[in-house]
Amino acid sequence: MSNGARIDALLAGPVRAINIGLAGFARDLAACGAEVAQVDWAPPAGGKPELLAALERLAAMESAIAAANQAVIERVLAAEPVLAGVHRADELIPALAERRLVLHTGPPLGWREMCGPLRGAVCGALVFEGWAADLTAAERLAASGEIAFSPNHHHGAVGPMTGITTRSMPLLVVENRVGLAKGGGNRAFCALNEGLGKVMRFGGNDAEVLARLAWLRDEFGPLLGRALELAGGIALGPLIARGLAMGDEMHQRNVACTSLFLRAIAPSMAAGGGPLEKAFAFIAGNDQFFLNIAMAMGKSMLDPARGVAGSTIVTAMSRNGTEFGIRVAGTGERWFTAPVEMPQGLFFPGFSAADANPDIGDSAILEAVGLGAFAMAAAPAVAGFIGAGGFADALAYTRAMAEIAVARNPRWTIPALEFSGTATGIDVRRVIETGIAPAINTGIAHRRAGVGQVGAGVARAPLACFEQALLALGDAAGR
Amino acid sequence: MSNGARIDALLAGPVRAINIGLAGFARDLAACGAEVAQVDWAPPAGGKPELLAALERLAAMESAIAAANQAVIERVLAAEPVLAGVHRADELIPALAERRLVLHTGPPLGWREMCGPLRGAVCGALVFEGWAADLTAAERLAASGEIAFSPNHHHGAVGPMTGITTRSMPLLVVENRVGLAKGGGNRAFCALNEGLGKVMRFGGNDAEVLARLAWLRDEFGPLLGRALELAGGIALGPLIARGLAMGDEMHQRNVACTSLFLRAIAPSMAAGGGPLEKAFAFIAGNDQFFLNIAMAMGKSMLDPARGVAGSTIVTAMSRNGTEFGIRVAGTGERWFTAPVEMPQGLFFPGFSAADANPDIGDSAILEAVGLGAFAMAAAPAVAGFIGAGGFADALAYTRAMAEIAVARNPRWTIPALEFSGTATGIDVRRVIETGIAPAINTGIAHRRAGVGQVGAGVARAPLACFEQALLALGDAAGR
Repeated sequence: MSNGARIDALLAGPVRAINIGLAGFARDLAACGAEVAQVDWAPPAGGKPELLAALERLAAMESAIAAANQAVIERVLAAEPVLAGVHRADELIPALAERRLVLHTGPPLGWREMCGPLRGAVCGALVFEGWAADLTAAERLAASGEIAFSPNHHHGAVGPMTGITTRSMPLLVVENRVGLAKGGGNRAFCALNEGLGKVMRFGGNDAEVLARLAWLRDEFGPLLGRALELAGGIALGPLIARGLAMGDEMHQRNVACTSLFLRAIAPSMAAGGGPLEKAFAFIAGNDQFFLNIAMAMGKSMLDPARGVAGSTIVTAMSRNGTEFGIRVAGTGERWFTAPVEMPQGLFFPGFSAADANPDIGDSAILEAVGLGAFAMAAAPAVAGFIGAGGFADALAYTRAMAEIAVARNPRWTIPALEFSGTATGIDVRRVIETGIAPAINTGIAHRRAGVGQVGAGVARAPLACFEQALLALGDAAGR
Repeated sequence: MSNGARIDALLAGPVRAINIGLAGFARDLAACGAEVAQVDWAPPAGGKPELLAALERLAAMESAIAAANQAVIERVLAAEPVLAGVHRADELIPALAERRLVLHTGPPLGWREMCGPLRGAVCGALVFEGWAADLTAAERLAASGEIAFSPNHHHGAVGPMTGITTRSMPLLVVENRVGLAKGGGNRAFCALNEGLGKVMRFGGNDAEVLARLAWLRDEFGPLLGRALELAGGIALGPLIARGLAMGDEMHQRNVACTSLFLRAIAPSMAAGGGPLEKAFAFIAGNDQFFLNIAMAMGKSMLDPARGVAGSTIVTAMSRNGTEFGIRVAGTGERWFTAPVEMPQGLFFPGFSAADANPDIGDSAILEAVGLGAFAMAAAPAVAGFIGAGGFADALAYTRAMAEIAVARNPRWTIPALEFSGTATGIDVRRVIETGIAPAINTGIAHRRAGVGQVGAGVARAPLACFEQALLALGDAAGR
């Protein structure tokens, strides 16, 4: 066919258009009766000149950054996390023994900036520790300046939702044993999961909540700790691998890992003795029991990557209910923060979006290590639970998250993606280039203190955090 | 374009053919350099006139058959199977108390027809019951005619692989509680799973095997039975539903259900007391512990369908290592048998297909109830284990099995198929019409007595069983 004939053919029929980018043009064409295929597209970095300049500066150092990122990935993938024991928080975190200190989720903030459930949990913890006689006194004390606040992440710890950690609470200890023989190895801590419903991590603070915490401290924690010591610890890497083949993504779904963990530890619990029936019933009644173990594991795997100069990989994501914060390997301990967003999801009967607190919790450490929303394809059932759709939607989430990650974890594979590895290592550059914000599977707390969980959904990490991180990385590269 | 022009266009280029059916024609064309797409196709019922005549007779009664099949499906789907307890076999099955009787897998057969592992297991059981001093004496006794043999299926029981059941063995009791209040309800039994490796169900019969059976009888069985009574039983329908969302197909993969079951029963085990550490370690060390529970459940669900006149739905499939047998709702207790086939699969290190025993076990009751190979899409990890391929292959198995089943189980759904229900109710007519033989996920025993498991794979139910069943159904319809 000649070119002329081709053009004639093209123009012979009705208009058929492919529109790339702004959907408005497609709508106009469609309104005129044309057949239009819409292709989503946005300019890289939202077309912002300062971000494009930072990306360019980083591109000039591509090989150094690639090597740094490779080093980070090697550390993360080499991790050998083991749940080793349970100890009182003030035995693990010296600062808790030294003063009246409350550790909380997310980046730093003061009492005045705290949202409802975080305040509620703080007040409950002050009563729990005997520092206040009741919740009213606790609120006064919290506002007085006599209580110090600090992020869990500054003390080797993480905590789900409000993430309150105080001195007498029992903490799970995960040891990353890689290189332990050569003096290496690192640890991370997380409180025990309290179960579902009205619990301190969702802002609960009444007598029932505090009684459960006391039971965890006085009975269950020591019992589990004894069993873990008898067992010589429980290796978590292989357990997660099995869990991914069993429908868990370890953030909003931990049915498999909770069950596998109980199966693994039950003989040692029996050997260690104690009031076993109640302990087993507690684990049996809580599909999210393993969540806190997974979180401590995530931190223990990512912490060795902190401070690898030049790396653009995210080492932590966390939210305090007011601000979202990320840390990046190449910028060490610095937080890049922006206001948190609202999770989109499903609400329990009697609750609605109007009741929801904004995004909160250290649990986004799971997405940072390649689980949670990044592994949604492994857990199609969770997609329904959090209102993210069905099986196809679960696959789509994982594929999108793979676009902003630099590696695959060969030890953690997803059956429905023909056993390809979970996407690992969020690259700040890719987030900015693609405009794809990391997704986070999350519980949703009531915005008022004392109520508890009202739903579950998906939240997004604000792009502004990554923009700031990119500019900081670009500045460092420019020097 | 005129017809002449169309024909010219068709013949203008090189030959491009679609070949339907016999592949030989496609090979000839391809050898001449033509582009050929091969479409598998075979004439219905293999083109056999007597089968086509039977299908035609049945087609004339379509509405009566559809109603009978609907009644069968309603019974199966309404089942409420509950694992209720553990009791000695001779307390549950009177015939075992009356004489020296050995129950075995599959349709009936005598000592002379038995394959190696089945003979091995029989001899081990005779020593275990104290009827013979050693294996040599046992073999003499078994051949003497003084021992009676009978299929598990004739006594409300099933057993995996060799499926040996004798009087002192502890049996799991599954109660189908539907209609129990109105005097309905039925029970099915299965021995306890012995673990992996050298075990009686794979033909093992040495001192180690018998010592484990004695421990199950004297210690573990009573302990588990006590716990089940304290718990008021464990409902199995919801447990299977969770297991399907967690990568189990309940035949060659029971990781999730074993773990969920332990989580559910652990509090009652602790309450009941006994040597718990060893009991927990036994369950913790055996991913297939739940298999035998699932099998008894399958039988308890299908048994109420036996004898529904006119129904063409399979109520049991089973193999004794020599013959494969099926039972059909509309033909009651009658077995339709044909020689068993060899499983195709993967072998453990040091073993090969030359070591394999032909297909054996009552466990195909799982495929008959819509699990196992029928639910392979729920368990992509099992596809690799049994050599059936990856995720896509697992989906293909389930889709093929859906072609020969009449219903979907709305309570048992498969996430990777967007939560569609498992294919339930194998229709003899569909098997013959499509030529698709039911696939069965199976363990593979060594063909010699005393060795044990050598691999796992997929076996096919022989079409000849279904042909005989169809002819019998056709005869009944013709009367």
